[in-house]
Amino acid sequence: MARYKLVTFDVYAALFDLEGSLVPEVRAVLPPEVDPVAFFRLWRSKQLEFALISNSLGRGHLKFKYLTERALEYALKRHNLELPADTRAALVAAWNRLRPWPEAGEVLAGVKARGCLTALLSNGDEAMLRELAAALPVPVDHIFAADQAGFYKPHPAIYELPLKTLGLDRSEVLHVAGSASDVMGARSFGLPCAWSNRGRDYVLEPDLGPDFEFPDLTGVLSLL
Amino acid sequence: MARYKLVTFDVYAALFDLEGSLVPEVRAVLPPEVDPVAFFRLWRSKQLEFALISNSLGRGHLKFKYLTERALEYALKRHNLELPADTRAALVAAWNRLRPWPEAGEVLAGVKARGCLTALLSNGDEAMLRELAAALPVPVDHIFAADQAGFYKPHPAIYELPLKTLGLDRSEVLHVAGSASDVMGARSFGLPCAWSNRGRDYVLEPDLGPDFEFPDLTGVLSLL
Repeated sequence: MARYKLVTFDVYAALFDLEGSLVPEVRAVLPPEVDPVAFFRLWRSKQLEFALISNSLGRGHLKFKYLTERALEYALKRHNLELPADTRAALVAAWNRLRPWPEAGEVLAGVKARGCLTALLSNGDEAMLRELAAALPVPVDHIFAADQAGFYKPHPAIYELPLKTLGLDRSEVLHVAGSASDVMGARSFGLPCAWSNRGRDYVLEPDLGPDFEFPDLTGVLSLL
Repeated sequence: MARYKLVTFDVYAALFDLEGSLVPEVRAVLPPEVDPVAFFRLWRSKQLEFALISNSLGRGHLKFKYLTERALEYALKRHNLELPADTRAALVAAWNRLRPWPEAGEVLAGVKARGCLTALLSNGDEAMLRELAAALPVPVDHIFAADQAGFYKPHPAIYELPLKTLGLDRSEVLHVAGSASDVMGARSFGLPCAWSNRGRDYVLEPDLGPDFEFPDLTGVLSLL
């Protein structure tokens, strides 16, 4: 009997290679003197900051695609650059065609083989996540998206989605986090949490550290 | 008759020179091979990120001093450094001895001379802000702190403090913001907002831009 009934995966860090997928897209459209890694990191950090700000403002949910568009425009302004509207749209659409980490398919298949359901649990919009899921080597059983919850991670509403949808207890769900704030959110909500910590990062709140920590996704299979 | 009855000032960017005050403190205690500006910016960005995360977690208010301590420990870990507890405590205490921007005294005096009340409105704890206020060249009339509101900017609860305390309408309060997220928070709540935008930054949400924007604090006097 499986210890967990469901394993939820963070998308933009844990399951997919964000920089490996998007830095080449950025490089292809920016002037050669702009560092595409630094540009992408600014874009990404402002997208995440805007998600947290929108949680705090309490004015209703803004779609992740919208935050992604605004954060791209911010990064362009900071670099004193302009791009045509269709080029900006293509960069935002590239978030729907990310490359999974090399071990992602094996890990998803292994989780299924051990009798657990699989799910994405992400700040992305449901429509963005459906496109990504269609391209995964192994299909997932469920998609839990921020626009279903009305809040972004690490707000508890998003970690509650699988419990409400599937009628599970917290102890029956293992969340595989991809970032320190995701770890803190899952642990604050009370989910068992494994951190695929590729960047050797640290949580800000020691009391909300992960239950398990691995350098990539493969360690997850040892928990099931 | 004054157009505004109260002018509230953001503290850690608008009224005080954070980097000019704290980078020398960091430089004095870190090994010479560590860039003190980069170290301080990581410390500051993680402090702010933690404030936003704590708003989203909804587990009750964490003091700003606590976030400052945890963010410092994070920055040390990322640099693979250790500092004695008393040195870390001295760095955190330095947040209570910041240098105001050169024009701060003149602007506070000018606001008073035009018949307006003045206040600090900040993510800092009340105790931290009281120490800073005692060292200002011109005393302020009120202190509005995040630990009074139970939330950090840009949550509406903190911008509501002066209205509840003084019985004012939104239109009677001018907020002087020091950062893009502070602008968005004040405007989302409905306060008239002037941005002392020393870093030539941009707001992420064009609909929540400032009513007035200046390269430093002196422009505020032209509004009164």
